[in-house]
Parts: sequence; structure tokens; C-alpha cells
Amino acid sequence: MPTVAMIGGGQLARMTHQSAIALGQCLRVLAGSPDDPAAAVSADVVLGSHDDLDDLLRAAEGAVALTFDHEGVPLVHLRALEERGVAVRPPSAALQYAQDKMLMRARLAELGLPVPDFADLAGERAAAREALIAFGEAHGWQIVLKAVRGGYDGRGVWLIDPSAGSEQARDEALAVFDAADVVDGSTVLMVEQKVAMRRELSAMIARSPHGQGAAWPVVETVQRNGQCAVVIAPAPDLDPEVAQRAQQMALGLADELGVVGDMAMELFETDDGELLVNELAMRPHNSGHWTMDGAVTSQFEQHLRAVLDYPLGATAPLAGVVVMANVLGAGEAPAMSMDERLHHLMARMPEAKVHLYGKAERPDRKVGHVNVVGRPGQSVDDVRERAERAAHWMSHGVWTDGWDPHGASLDG
Amino acid sequence: MPTVAMIGGGQLARMTHQSAIALGQCLRVLAGSPDDPAAAVSADVVLGSHDDLDDLLRAAEGAVALTFDHEGVPLVHLRALEERGVAVRPPSAALQYAQDKMLMRARLAELGLPVPDFADLAGERAAAREALIAFGEAHGWQIVLKAVRGGYDGRGVWLIDPSAGSEQARDEALAVFDAADVVDGSTVLMVEQKVAMRRELSAMIARSPHGQGAAWPVVETVQRNGQCAVVIAPAPDLDPEVAQRAQQMALGLADELGVVGDMAMELFETDDGELLVNELAMRPHNSGHWTMDGAVTSQFEQHLRAVLDYPLGATAPLAGVVVMANVLGAGEAPAMSMDERLHHLMARMPEAKVHLYGKAERPDRKVGHVNVVGRPGQSVDDVRERAERAAHWMSHGVWTDGWDPHGASLDG
Repeated sequence: MPTVAMIGGGQLARMTHQSAIALGQCLRVLAGSPDDPAAAVSADVVLGSHDDLDDLLRAAEGAVALTFDHEGVPLVHLRALEERGVAVRPPSAALQYAQDKMLMRARLAELGLPVPDFADLAGERAAAREALIAFGEAHGWQIVLKAVRGGYDGRGVWLIDPSAGSEQARDEALAVFDAADVVDGSTVLMVEQKVAMRRELSAMIARSPHGQGAAWPVVETVQRNGQCAVVIAPAPDLDPEVAQRAQQMALGLADELGVVGDMAMELFETDDGELLVNELAMRPHNSGHWTMDGAVTSQFEQHLRAVLDYPLGATAPLAGVVVMANVLGAGEAPAMSMDERLHHLMARMPEAKVHLYGKAERPDRKVGHVNVVGRPGQSVDDVRERAERAAHWMSHGVWTDGWDPHGASLDG
Repeated sequence: MPTVAMIGGGQLARMTHQSAIALGQCLRVLAGSPDDPAAAVSADVVLGSHDDLDDLLRAAEGAVALTFDHEGVPLVHLRALEERGVAVRPPSAALQYAQDKMLMRARLAELGLPVPDFADLAGERAAAREALIAFGEAHGWQIVLKAVRGGYDGRGVWLIDPSAGSEQARDEALAVFDAADVVDGSTVLMVEQKVAMRRELSAMIARSPHGQGAAWPVVETVQRNGQCAVVIAPAPDLDPEVAQRAQQMALGLADELGVVGDMAMELFETDDGELLVNELAMRPHNSGHWTMDGAVTSQFEQHLRAVLDYPLGATAPLAGVVVMANVLGAGEAPAMSMDERLHHLMARMPEAKVHLYGKAERPDRKVGHVNVVGRPGQSVDDVRERAERAAHWMSHGVWTDGWDPHGASLDG
């Protein structure tokens, strides 16, 4: 059976390896350390850096396709790999849009897809500073500054608070601008309108080189501190027409850009029911973790099928509602070990599906997630409460309903 | 997180590793070769033999529990491990019954569990030969000879054909007896009554050291050439009272024997609706493969939970019907490679869940399985036909419905 090489040894590669096993393969992982989440569980590990072309070439050797657990591989290396005949999937021509938010915004706007207002803050710094001020004034300082490259999980994103008046907001925005890294005399920042919205959605799809596309149900994502915290599948009470539009936007864009593999299109649903495209990821994505236990084909198997140009799998959900909640490292170390917390969770919720990444706990670091697949007739609120209660317990060793394992049970 | 060591690098260890990953672990595997199904995908492989105590001790080092992918570890080694403080799970006191069919039969009979008539053929050979003849005559030569140890997948089992008359059946039985291995002047054979039955069932349960038990729905197993070929979950039209009795027998026996981990109790359902215990396995089992895609907790995760003394997971099925069909190596090599067959299967059945073991194809060798999870309203026959069609295609590169990928489609 073929070998797929994945660049990056994080949890996405770890979970992709689980799916590779079922397909008769072993995922090859390029990892920085043998202790990385994926390297710790795969028999085929290449130690090296995603910044080093020689390491990338070693990982690609004999592999049918090369794909990614993150967006960090320099474009120049991706192109060099392609020139040497490596099947880079998604190809550099597509992946560049997931690597560069400004390029992505400009391309989406060009294709007529709905996006928030935005402005580039690259170029001569005094002019860019003036452009930021003009953009802020035009939008009542309801703005977000973003690093064009490398941001994730809330890093590289600065929300400006306009509540204390224009002047303070302006000072705050300029402070971000002035403190930003300067590359070749230019910041690598952009600014966007902060959209008044009802909620965030994600349209996950996959596309094969052959051009086949498949879409999972559109989900609602709940962010906390700029990080995905909870995903509800499908998005509750979403107008079916809006859901279909989101799927079509994602499938159409993937086709337009030549994406291969999974793609998550993060969307804002505005207060008046419109959709705006927020971010793109061209890989398995946090908003697709629910598929591991809640859909016929998981996003990890689907990504492999896509990059191998296998026909894609069915995306139907296995239940009326599935909720995923992330397990984040706590600010204060819990009294119980992770293993003890897992014991307690299993005792209290035999239906919780736990996925741990083998990572050390650090504040706000994603170290696992919990899926709860609803039973027939179970309400969205009930499933969500259970998933969040489970994840919070795994993070903090505290039950959100006040249950005390050493005292009386609130469950009755 | 804890380390579990599994003795044996076959497909059961391979699939247990998939579940170990979700629990934040990496399964340690004692394998004979780095190419063994589990060794090829795990980062923690000890190369060695299950017959060598030193190798077993190396595998056990630092592991919280030691468990098994097969029944082949000599009892004397299991006891030696236990004497050295290794948490052998299931313990030797239980596992001996899965290793020795005669011991198992005698114990079941002693416990009052319903079993087919049987007789031991050990001891002085002339007397054992006479005992065989007497047993055969008493049962109209409706008998089965079995190797007491080491049989699996139809090996070590000889069905005697009584259709051509007593004399021929007798000759056939004696030929098996005379050709059998002799150890210390005795054969290691037993003889059993061949039961007139409606079908075979399997009651899969798990038990933790703590004494917690959990049962999956009782399934119907379809055997071909002495091998499990198809599993239908739950067993269609099974009297709920009979199903419950089967589960209680399995849970009760596991408790009685002190089993830890998964246990499959294979049963005959006789023509008059009675249950007889056929075989026992104390590990993940072919009749539980459907749980990977069809139940809240798979038998592989459950086995790990049990051997780690974690609380057990929910065993509820995810659909009204789930069918598993084994992919067996074909007698004649298919024209298409396994990879090509997989492409075609995926194109035709996007809902099929394929599990490949990374094994070379040899006639009748289990190289994978396919699960099909029924949609609401889908009939058992429909789901079964799809699962069997998929598995037959993967085995032979031939569609059982005559569909020709290069010609016209029968699907319309």
C-alpha cells in the first residue's frame, strides 16, 4: 500500500496516522522530536525540520504524496519539492492562500466571495500607519489587526476595543502596529472590519486531485480567547439554504484554487443571516474533530483519501447531534493526574469519546478533545453540556455542575 | 499515560494500537518481525518471541499491564511473569481455559453451563482410540475432533462426515486420530458432538479487574470453512430473553474465571432455541470487529480500558444493524492490486468502512475486514449484501452482483 508523508508531528498527524492504519498504511511523519504527538505513535518517523529542504526531501522519498499538519512550510520549499516531482498536496499554488491571509483575502474578493472589509498594512510604514487610521475611523474602530502569516489559535490576532472612544482605540491599534515585526521595512500586518455577527460557522469539505468534492454538514464553532473551544454538528437551527450556500462556497473555492485534501472555510453568520468568509485551512481542522466519532468518514481518513486520489468517503453524520469540546491545558495544574482524570471521566460518562494527543499540559494548549454523539431524542443543549462538562473536567479536574466525587452526587 | 504491552504483533494488536492512540498512549508490541501488522505501525516495538521468557520480560518492563493478541504464550511463562509481579491480563488462572479446550469444556460442565457432549482423547492411545469409537457410535458419528491446543480459524478442527455411513465415518475419525501429534505417548485431541443448530452466535463482553462487566449486543456469526466470515450485529430476530441469557452466561463465566479484558463466548443456537457454549476467547475477537464503526466503544478501546482497570465504555450500537465481513486472501491472485481494489470499492461504496491489516495475501488468510453501518430503515439483508459484496471484491477483485467496472453498471 502507498506511503503518505505528513509534515509536522502534531495532533493532526497523530490522528491521521490512526486512519492510515485502517487503510493498510503507516503514516510517515516529519517531526522535530521523537516525543511529538505523531512521532510518539508512528513506526515511520523522519526527524527534521519543516524549514529545511533536505529534511523535507528525506520525508518525501518513496512517498506517494506529501501533505501537512500545519501551514508552516516555506513556499519556496514547496515549489522546490514540486519541481523535483514530489506530489505536494495541497499544491503550493493552493496552499499559499492558507499561508498568507492577505493573499487569501484579495483572492476571495476577486472571486466575488463575501468577506469583511480589509486593508493591507504592508509597504512604506508612514503610509501604512495612515491607512490604518483611515480604516479605523471609517469603521468606528470596530477592527481587528492580523499578522498576515503564522498566526493560529488566537496568536497573531489583535481585537481593538472601541468601547472607550475613538482616541483610545486608535492608540491601541497604533501600539500594535508600532510593535509589530518589520520585514524589509514593512510590517506584515493587515486590518479587517470586526463584523457584528450571530455566530461562527465552519464548512468542512474535501477535494481530490481528480476534482471530486465532498462536504460534511456545516457546523457551529464557539471560540474562546481566539481559540476554537466547542463545535456543534450540525449547526443548530441553520437555515438549510444558508448551509447549502456555505458548502457550495467552500466546494467552489476549493475547485477554483485547486485545493487537494481537507479544507475548512471558517465563516461568520451575520446578524442578518449573511455569510462572510473568515479564514481558510487546507488540512484536517479542529472544526472537523467531531467526524472521528460522529460521521461515516472522519476528516482524517478523508484527507488521506483525497491526497491519495482515492474516491472520497460518505460524509453523513451518525447522529442528529454531535458535540466536540477541546481539552485545553489549565492555568493551574489540576490536583489529579491526566490519567486519574480520565478514570473519573470514564466512570461518570461511559459514552464520552476521549482523544488525547500525548502533549504536556500548558495553559490554553490543546491537549485533547472529547466528542459526545447524541442519542436519538437527546437535545443539543444536553449533548453540548455533557461534552463541555467532560472537556472542562479533563482540563481542570473540576466538574462544572459542582459534582464532588468524594462527596454526594448531584446526578442523584 | 500508562503503557500497555501486547504480546503478538497481529491485526488485533494493530487495531488495539489505534485505540491506544486516542487514550494518549502508544501500544507496546512484542512481535516476531518489524513487518508484523502491529509492529509496522507502532513506535514501541520489542522484537522477540512469545515463547521466550526473556523476551516477554523485556516487553513487560515498565508496562502497567501485559495482554495478548493470541493464546500462544506458554502457561509456565505466564506464571513466571506473574511471580515477578507483572500484571498479566487476563491472568494465567483465567487464560488457561482459553488455551486448553479440554480444560475449558470440563470447567464449563462443572459450572453447569450448557455444552455439547464431549470426551477427552488423551492418555493411553489404545484406550483413547476405543473411547473415540464409542463416542462416535453413541452420536451416530455426528462428531468433531479438535486439537486441545493451538487451533484457530478452522485449523485443528476436523468435522467428520457421517453421510456415507458409520464405517466410513469411523475410518475417517480414526485416520485423524492416528495422524495426530503424540506428546508423551498421548494425543492432545478431544472429541465433541456435532450439534444440530440454527446458527452460531457470539456474546462479547469485557470485564475489568475491579469486577465491572459490560456486554455488547449478541451477534450472529457466519462461518465458512471453519473461519468466521460474516458477523451481523445484533443477531437478527434473536429472542431478547435468549440474548440476555447469553450475555449473562458470558458475564457470569468471566466473573467466575476472573477474566480481565474482552471475552468472546461463541455459542450454538440449537434448532429448538437452546444455547450451547462452543469456544471462548479472552482477547479482542473477530466477532467484535463490527464495534469499531458500529458501537459507542470498540472492543479494542474496551480491552485497553479493562486491562488498565479504567471504567468500561458504553456498548450501545450506533445503528439498528451493522455487518462485518472478513477480507480473506484469494486462492488465485486477483488481477488488480489491493490498492486498485480499494480505489474501486471506495468509488462504488462510499459508506464502506475498510480495515486492512498490512498482511500479504495468502489463500484464506484474514487480511482485513469491511464494516457497513446500516442507515435508518435499511434492511439487514441489504446491509449484509453490501458488506459481503465489498469484502468479496477486496478478496477476489470480482463483484458478486456481476458488475463490470469497464462495462455497463448494474446499479443503473
